[in-house]
Amino acid sequence: MYYCVIIVLSIIYGVKRVKYQKPLSSAVRRRLPRYYRYLSTLLELGISKISSKDLGNRMGITSSQVRQDFSSFGGYGLQGYGYDVKTLHQEIGNILGLNTIRNMIIIGAGSLGQALAKHKEFEKKGFKVIGIFDVKTELIGQKITEHEIRHLDTLPQFLENNQVDIAILTIPENFGREVAAYITELGIKAIWNFVPIELKTPDDVIVENIHLIDSLMVLGYNYKHNRHE
Amino acid sequence: MYYCVIIVLSIIYGVKRVKYQKPLSSAVRRRLPRYYRYLSTLLELGISKISSKDLGNRMGITSSQVRQDFSSFGGYGLQGYGYDVKTLHQEIGNILGLNTIRNMIIIGAGSLGQALAKHKEFEKKGFKVIGIFDVKTELIGQKITEHEIRHLDTLPQFLENNQVDIAILTIPENFGREVAAYITELGIKAIWNFVPIELKTPDDVIVENIHLIDSLMVLGYNYKHNRHE
Repeated sequence: MYYCVIIVLSIIYGVKRVKYQKPLSSAVRRRLPRYYRYLSTLLELGISKISSKDLGNRMGITSSQVRQDFSSFGGYGLQGYGYDVKTLHQEIGNILGLNTIRNMIIIGAGSLGQALAKHKEFEKKGFKVIGIFDVKTELIGQKITEHEIRHLDTLPQFLENNQVDIAILTIPENFGREVAAYITELGIKAIWNFVPIELKTPDDVIVENIHLIDSLMVLGYNYKHNRHE
Repeated sequence: MYYCVIIVLSIIYGVKRVKYQKPLSSAVRRRLPRYYRYLSTLLELGISKISSKDLGNRMGITSSQVRQDFSSFGGYGLQGYGYDVKTLHQEIGNILGLNTIRNMIIIGAGSLGQALAKHKEFEKKGFKVIGIFDVKTELIGQKITEHEIRHLDTLPQFLENNQVDIAILTIPENFGREVAAYITELGIKAIWNFVPIELKTPDDVIVENIHLIDSLMVLGYNYKHNRHE
């Protein structure tokens, strides 16, 4: 009877543990891809177990930070034993949704847009470019990888026939706001923004910025003052 | 006599205030380019004064954050009057070192390296590409903007004849560590790293990472869970 109660409680606890997932803080979310990359490397090196101390050392963060982060999405570590690299790698991949395909379109077929279209790393992680758009007549019809550049005017029709998860914006700065308004009106809910402006979008639209010039300015500052992050 | 003391004290305080500059925290350093961008826009719009509240509203941060940030590098605001946009813009530009030219080389002349070489925004802010390097024989000698792609083996000689401040790394992942070691041994002190790995570099080398895939993974997560930063 006693054992029975323990077993039942364990099952309930186990189920709850799997189902209950607190929203991760912004800082943890930012660290997840880094953990994922490190764990990928460990797997490649054939390392199957790692302690929070060892992982923290490699990543330049404290072991308590590692433990706290991992416990925030469910644990997986055993005292004195460390983490199972494969399990953890898989679990973080799941949390990041890498087991699902995300369809992306690129708006702005200049050199940066084309470079992103050709970037092989994205598709390996489930992020697949399915269309490239621009407004410059001379670009329309040109082929970038397997995609013909389409006119942005054809986007509504494209969205009717294709499930698009993410729009990558690599257009000139002066078109940024207008195009962001246009695509969110068409129902785009996630934007990877390379335009060096802050986009104003509806509340249900997620924007992730790559502000290249900001990053370069920070590097310039840190170089001048010899500062590390 | 009394006034004299006040004047002398004011001068001493004034001089101290200008000369004494605390190292800026990492968070403030990251916000500086954003302030700079917003102030540029205000200047373009012909707005000459702005309150911390108004600026904070536009940027989506609190007015007390704005005041705290600006006071950390010297103030410039007057109670009830706001900030002088031109002065502040200039001052932040100075802090970021935008009044000096930084020479950059690109290592890795693939599509991303080429896109960065063609990016016009960088030079406008004082970041000038002066050389592009690769190891692929078929690329050597090709012209990207005004630069012929050079073989990486010629880098030591190039560094003897040119002052290089920043190296941009856009090489494949598997060459990341080796090339980083090579260029830091040659004396490069600042790296803008696009390789999706963490580089191990000597303590006096500043690394600023653009981890595209990390950013995309965070976007994927935030999109799935409808989370904003």
